[in-house]
Amino acid sequence: MAGSTFGRHFTIQTWGESHGKAIGVVIDGCPAGLPLCEEDIQKQLDRRKPGQSKFATPRREADQVEILSGVFEGKTTGTPISLLVQNTSQRSHDYSEISTYYRPGHADFTFDEKYGFRDYRGGGRSSGRETIGRAAAGAVAKKILKQLGIDVMAYTKSIGPISIDMDHFDKAAITETPTGMPDLEAAKKAEAYLEACMKETDSAGGVVECTVVGCPAGIGEPVFDKLDAVLGKAVLSIGAVKAFEIGDGCSVARSKGSENNDAFRVKDGSVTKETNHAGGILGGISDGSPIILRAYIKPTPSIHRTQQTVNKAGQEISVNIKGRHDPIIVPRAVVVVESMTAIALLDLLLENMKSKMDYLERIYLA
Amino acid sequence: MAGSTFGRHFTIQTWGESHGKAIGVVIDGCPAGLPLCEEDIQKQLDRRKPGQSKFATPRREADQVEILSGVFEGKTTGTPISLLVQNTSQRSHDYSEISTYYRPGHADFTFDEKYGFRDYRGGGRSSGRETIGRAAAGAVAKKILKQLGIDVMAYTKSIGPISIDMDHFDKAAITETPTGMPDLEAAKKAEAYLEACMKETDSAGGVVECTVVGCPAGIGEPVFDKLDAVLGKAVLSIGAVKAFEIGDGCSVARSKGSENNDAFRVKDGSVTKETNHAGGILGGISDGSPIILRAYIKPTPSIHRTQQTVNKAGQEISVNIKGRHDPIIVPRAVVVVESMTAIALLDLLLENMKSKMDYLERIYLA
Amino acid sequence: MAGSTFGRHFTIQTWGESHGKAIGVVIDGCPAGLPLCEEDIQKQLDRRKPGQSKFATPRREADQVEILSGVFEGKTTGTPISLLVQNTSQRSHDYSEISTYYRPGHADFTFDEKYGFRDYRGGGRSSGRETIGRAAAGAVAKKILKQLGIDVMAYTKSIGPISIDMDHFDKAAITETPTGMPDLEAAKKAEAYLEACMKETDSAGGVVECTVVGCPAGIGEPVFDKLDAVLGKAVLSIGAVKAFEIGDGCSVARSKGSENNDAFRVKDGSVTKETNHAGGILGGISDGSPIILRAYIKPTPSIHRTQQTVNKAGQEISVNIKGRHDPIIVPRAVVVVESMTAIALLDLLLENMKSKMDYLERIYLA
Amino acid sequence: MAGSTFGRHFTIQTWGESHGKAIGVVIDGCPAGLPLCEEDIQKQLDRRKPGQSKFATPRREADQVEILSGVFEGKTTGTPISLLVQNTSQRSHDYSEISTYYRPGHADFTFDEKYGFRDYRGGGRSSGRETIGRAAAGAVAKKILKQLGIDVMAYTKSIGPISIDMDHFDKAAITETPTGMPDLEAAKKAEAYLEACMKETDSAGGVVECTVVGCPAGIGEPVFDKLDAVLGKAVLSIGAVKAFEIGDGCSVARSKGSENNDAFRVKDGSVTKETNHAGGILGGISDGSPIILRAYIKPTPSIHRTQQTVNKAGQEISVNIKGRHDPIIVPRAVVVVESMTAIALLDLLLENMKSKMDYLERIYLA
Repeated sequence: MAGSTFGRHFTIQTWGESHGKAIGVVIDGCPAGLPLCEEDIQKQLDRRKPGQSKFATPRREADQVEILSGVFEGKTTGTPISLLVQNTSQRSHDYSEISTYYRPGHADFTFDEKYGFRDYRGGGRSSGRETIGRAAAGAVAKKILKQLGIDVMAYTKSIGPISIDMDHFDKAAITETPTGMPDLEAAKKAEAYLEACMKETDSAGGVVECTVVGCPAGIGEPVFDKLDAVLGKAVLSIGAVKAFEIGDGCSVARSKGSENNDAFRVKDGSVTKETNHAGGILGGISDGSPIILRAYIKPTPSIHRTQQTVNKAGQEISVNIKGRHDPIIVPRAVVVVESMTAIALLDLLLENMKSKMDYLERIYLA
Repeated sequence: MAGSTFGRHFTIQTWGESHGKAIGVVIDGCPAGLPLCEEDIQKQLDRRKPGQSKFATPRREADQVEILSGVFEGKTTGTPISLLVQNTSQRSHDYSEISTYYRPGHADFTFDEKYGFRDYRGGGRSSGRETIGRAAAGAVAKKILKQLGIDVMAYTKSIGPISIDMDHFDKAAITETPTGMPDLEAAKKAEAYLEACMKETDSAGGVVECTVVGCPAGIGEPVFDKLDAVLGKAVLSIGAVKAFEIGDGCSVARSKGSENNDAFRVKDGSVTKETNHAGGILGGISDGSPIILRAYIKPTPSIHRTQQTVNKAGQEISVNIKGRHDPIIVPRAVVVVESMTAIALLDLLLENMKSKMDYLERIYLA
Repeated sequence: MAGSTFGRHFTIQTWGESHGKAIGVVIDGCPAGLPLCEEDIQKQLDRRKPGQSKFATPRREADQVEILSGVFEGKTTGTPISLLVQNTSQRSHDYSEISTYYRPGHADFTFDEKYGFRDYRGGGRSSGRETIGRAAAGAVAKKILKQLGIDVMAYTKSIGPISIDMDHFDKAAITETPTGMPDLEAAKKAEAYLEACMKETDSAGGVVECTVVGCPAGIGEPVFDKLDAVLGKAVLSIGAVKAFEIGDGCSVARSKGSENNDAFRVKDGSVTKETNHAGGILGGISDGSPIILRAYIKPTPSIHRTQQTVNKAGQEISVNIKGRHDPIIVPRAVVVVESMTAIALLDLLLENMKSKMDYLERIYLA
Repeated sequence: MAGSTFGRHFTIQTWGESHGKAIGVVIDGCPAGLPLCEEDIQKQLDRRKPGQSKFATPRREADQVEILSGVFEGKTTGTPISLLVQNTSQRSHDYSEISTYYRPGHADFTFDEKYGFRDYRGGGRSSGRETIGRAAAGAVAKKILKQLGIDVMAYTKSIGPISIDMDHFDKAAITETPTGMPDLEAAKKAEAYLEACMKETDSAGGVVECTVVGCPAGIGEPVFDKLDAVLGKAVLSIGAVKAFEIGDGCSVARSKGSENNDAFRVKDGSVTKETNHAGGILGGISDGSPIILRAYIKPTPSIHRTQQTVNKAGQEISVNIKGRHDPIIVPRAVVVVESMTAIALLDLLLENMKSKMDYLERIYLA
């Protein structure tokens, strides 16, 4: 394996370059008997599609998913599900110039160092288009979780200096605003901020938050595969994410034990917590409270400004990268964070099925 | 696997409970021919040993490591290295009370939910003693990295509100101060802060930073096993870590592209970067600059205060947990963050050996 | 993972059903810099294509492979190689009858037991068409091995009671005879035997042998991933294989130590063995002699005879399965055994790159 | 990983050399709640202990197992179970001579080639003592299987030319005869045969057969992790095994479809098979019939005869290896084959828990 596979049980393997013939994902380990059709997946894909707002590249890709295997008579068969999206507009560009130097903030230099050369067309394998496979597999994972009563929801928490106000949380706004912000007022301010960035030929970063409601207690393995560690890897594997938080995150470092501990309580006969500083995870295992995580995303590295860099001949040069660039990655990353969270959580739910003899007996002695 | 294994190539498997007979780690995949003796490992272990300062439990454990296999005539043989530490003082406590309720901020409740019951003595498997195995394996990983010219160094960056001043960086202070802070002035302030916490029967959190110098460009796999994602998982799998950052971390969310991009430069004939906002990683692959990461650690959950919780019978109760508790986890976590960083990085260095035909030919056609 | 992935380093994941839209394989972990084009793969695929002789189903499939990713400007890029073959003739059959009962010797019953239902068209996932992905990936593995001086060659050793005579070994005959036998005389006899089988509406089994020449000593891991164990899994994972041998295989059980031991000798300054009862593997590790393995393959289960079976309603019934059936699996299995051998061996060659510090230094300190 | 780990769910990692301080195994993934004590394991270990008959080395090892972790108040906790056996008699020998040359039929040469040097004392890691860990873990696997109604039983099928008569099958004789043969008459003949071998300073091979009764249909993954492939790898990873068969094994190659197909029948309302040529596996998935497998084991390579070999200086020499050697490996391998079968089967039972949505719902929606 060379890192294009995620998950031990619900295993996804993505493949494809930005400007190759197609891009796709193979899911191995999807339980049999899940109703599944192309629309189920297309809906999630459409949320990350380019060309949908003034803040996203107008690239004309249908990004239409095809199910090539693993589904029969409308249900998953338990065998690998191969999902494919054709790259329809891949020949529109001239990459001869970009192939000769290293764009700042991009993976051009590191790919060349690793492999000796690179597919330089549109970022090749390091392109954001790789996340199509993640979103497609995420749609399947989300559907399984839903059937088990678990909801995963991501949204834009902040863009540059503009943050949402949780008291004004408006779920519908996540998909209705171009920013993915569930707060119409903050969304408006963020749009103004982004327009200013674009005028200054600059770009902005932001924060995606994701919550999971309905996850039973007991999910996550106690040592290296802690729920937070696995979620962390899932989210940090998304390009441009530079920090990851669970619950109170960074702020715990300045907190005191008396403030940070969540008191246990009993509610409707169940153990619950008075507060949720822990973000739903104790000792790496879900505690039944909502799981809360955040991804901090850097500003788009491609900007319309003259930048200092180096070419393949080892000379220092000034470049101004052509083409239209998204002023922000965050809104399109929302569905990817949500997808990776769903995939990682499902993987640990499957892992947990072997945690006690009682579960084995429910299946094999029933 | 149920999560006690880390790494695909340099694979470590830790085992053991706080109050079992012993605790240990098995390393599979250590290359043959590395000079290795017990002292090499003991030095790293001694850095996390309890009873060394007023801020750490005075538990009297020798924590003496034994090499049981995998080393012959002073060198690693390429076969599994089994490392064992006896638990010598494990019967000193009465855990009958603690076994009946769930300590706030601990994994008692989640272990019971997952497994149906738990080894309640000293936290069982969720005890900090599990990290002995990580530190022991980390010593081996660090030795291999050193031989390849790569240095990994962690230290305390902040405790509560007190942060080090990088301009006063003093490497020796890392092991000489009880806080692990490489800045004597900040260390003194942090000690005063911790003493105040102890007086108030409270505890503090903090930040561990880790830097890697000498890592070649090209390490890390482009998609799910990005260097930052693998380091993130490694560090987030350490108990009490609630956030993880690479390079500028969270602050990128408020930065602009023009500020956050690192310009490439040529220095002494090599490609380098003018700044290092990226923390040494571009597109998930090392770029040759120092790798910089941070772990945000919560305050010790065990405090000498009356806390609200729930017992196994499902009743709300008030508890005041007996025993002496460390007022802070951070100083003892330094060596664990350093160890996990070394292990994760080494694993990806081994993975990278297969990245190009040129490397296969260097080994098989030499 | 649910078993559609093979290999830890050169990892192949096959997907697709006999009568789905397409069938394919994704290779992750192919080193960068290998020259690769569709013809390289097509040649290997053509060897297993149906409709090529009187002993193989006349199904009209072009089985044309497409490279969808991982190759740029004629060379592998180090990222996943997605290979796809369209299923062009998949709607030619009526499977309504077959869907209601369990064919003897097939996986119909076991799939239903495992998943609750099955894709019954042409065997679904358990169809021999799944091996297209193996053969395609095998072509890539063979090309890498070739570049390292290693040759993998499989052929039909016997069909029913007819065996080749090693003294008449004729390599060209492997691809020129419809049986895959490298002995024209034996091939003729085998053809006559198969024609007799067909007349009797019966089917035959046989043996595929595979040899590897040029493999360096030292490949294979000493305990669970012994070279013979990994080759055994690779070959036993091919449908219809019921036994696997290395070197002298079963006959060692009747041999004595004095007969079975291979004396070491020195030849041209290198250590070699006087005999090769061991089949090139000692203690699970290659010893530099040719590796020799055999797969024993059962007769095609589909025969034009009335057979006793059970339907989904749990009733005993008599059936006579319609359609034209191959009288033997062996000739088309040759390329699959060869492919799986190449893939398994390459995987362990990559694993072995981490076996000693010397190798790490050759790559990172060069 | 470098091959000392087996299994994805019930994962065992063995470590230790013949003459190191100790030898052991860590089991990760044992479900919580299984009653387990040292005697449960010791019983299985005692079956492979040396010094028990005239056909086994009189090495005086107590081989007493210690449970170091993962069991609390008599039950498994779900966390890693570390099992250790001290090597008590490891300093009794002088290995200075053996260190200088390569014993025929042993792994001395291949270890040197792989790692550059080897632990030459008693075979180091390639010693039969490595199987202590397998037998110990096998005892745990067998106990879990037993609780699910599944019985695994191995025995000696043949020694040299002497085979058991299945009509005289006598289960008690497996542990009561020094040969492990469940047929007292054949056992006597085999003993005479072995005594003759010993007089001629020669050694013998043989066959171990293993049957599994009570395994539900549906176990095994359809493509690469077929039940037969995984069992094959498990058994072929045992030193000295040179061939592996399922059901009718090698003989299928000469059989016809009309003979080899097993007709399905209905018995007591369940689907069953009239015959069991398939050995309980169809399409890589268990069919509910007994699983039958065989391991073909080579004669002990160490014999008291002058043999031709090569020393480390590359010179051809004659050697006569000192010490007392077992004339046969087979009887002590019986428990190892049984253990590996149990471990492999349990691993796939755990894998199968994720095969359908129905199972997920039984655990998460109950």
